[in-house]
Amino acid sequence: MTGPQSLTDLVEKLRTLPGVGRKTAERLAFHILKSSRAEAEKLSTAIMDVKDKAKLCSVCSSITDNDPCQICADPSRDHSMICVVEEAHDLFSIERVGEYTGVYHVLMGTLSPLDGVGPEEIRVKELLARVEKGGVKEIILATNPNAEGEATAMYLAKTLKPQGIAVTRIARGLPMGGDLEYADEMTLSKSLSGRMRI
Amino acid sequence: MTGPQSLTDLVEKLRTLPGVGRKTAERLAFHILKSSRAEAEKLSTAIMDVKDKAKLCSVCSSITDNDPCQICADPSRDHSMICVVEEAHDLFSIERVGEYTGVYHVLMGTLSPLDGVGPEEIRVKELLARVEKGGVKEIILATNPNAEGEATAMYLAKTLKPQGIAVTRIARGLPMGGDLEYADEMTLSKSLSGRMRI
Repeated sequence: MTGPQSLTDLVEKLRTLPGVGRKTAERLAFHILKSSRAEAEKLSTAIMDVKDKAKLCSVCSSITDNDPCQICADPSRDHSMICVVEEAHDLFSIERVGEYTGVYHVLMGTLSPLDGVGPEEIRVKELLARVEKGGVKEIILATNPNAEGEATAMYLAKTLKPQGIAVTRIARGLPMGGDLEYADEMTLSKSLSGRMRI
Repeated sequence: MTGPQSLTDLVEKLRTLPGVGRKTAERLAFHILKSSRAEAEKLSTAIMDVKDKAKLCSVCSSITDNDPCQICADPSRDHSMICVVEEAHDLFSIERVGEYTGVYHVLMGTLSPLDGVGPEEIRVKELLARVEKGGVKEIILATNPNAEGEATAMYLAKTLKPQGIAVTRIARGLPMGGDLEYADEMTLSKSLSGRMRI
């Protein structure tokens, strides 16, 4: 950008966002420049608000404005069922479906020995503490179906089994609307081994 | 989003940006949430800075922090040559090439009779005033090569011709790296009629 300093600065800051290159940053900056001052102020304030207000839930490590979070504090949810996810956005994805009635536990990462991430670096200890407190009947492992997510699920299953609670893994198979012809071998394999009686 | 209010608010605000849908807004919001407070503050401040500092140049209507803009205030630029563009970002695109030594005039739009945009709604009057002041030898019409841009260029050419100055139009033809086979008819036609002796 060869424009004024304030515009160049904004473009540079916007470029630090994921998936935002120079062209996109310039388009966004020009949009902000042309929008009303009130609109720009709302965006500017929302950015600081999320930093000031959002924090981690002390129970499930989800992101929340109030501690404990809305889900952990809800007596109508089934607190005997804990769904373990990698990140808070996975939790929000499941909540959007609107069918799960249990509570959650956010690991804040996955096991990744090559990157030096062991069980101590993610919230495994906190999960075990919740189980030890009692009342938990089922743990649903909803980590991502990729190498790290699978390894993390395996590790958690092995660690939790001795506690005598049901440990389940979300189903892996063909996505709805998918096509057998285009499915990869791993997905097809999981789809067959995970077949259910109808 | 079913997350905390501050996060939902930020996602909603980000969604007002052009080309940003729900998924992108959520990815950006999570990035901001995970970035340091200082980083978020820089972005938040840059947004307000551009609204507070950036204004229109009183000479060429470009965007600038200081009036007149850097280009209009530069005595080393050729003030007898005015390049007319639709928007300030077009000016920055030409400046990035680093070859043009004249000054600019930003129309802040194009003629578009169907949308009720006539010569009064864009900065034509201001351009004529600059020409009338004297000293201008050439006007380069660099509006976009589409219906509105061509119509605006035609209108300006007709209006400026009686002033006895050179009025030129940027070349339209095959883009560099392009392919004759895939060029549209209009581009090929312009490419032929605009051929130059080598």
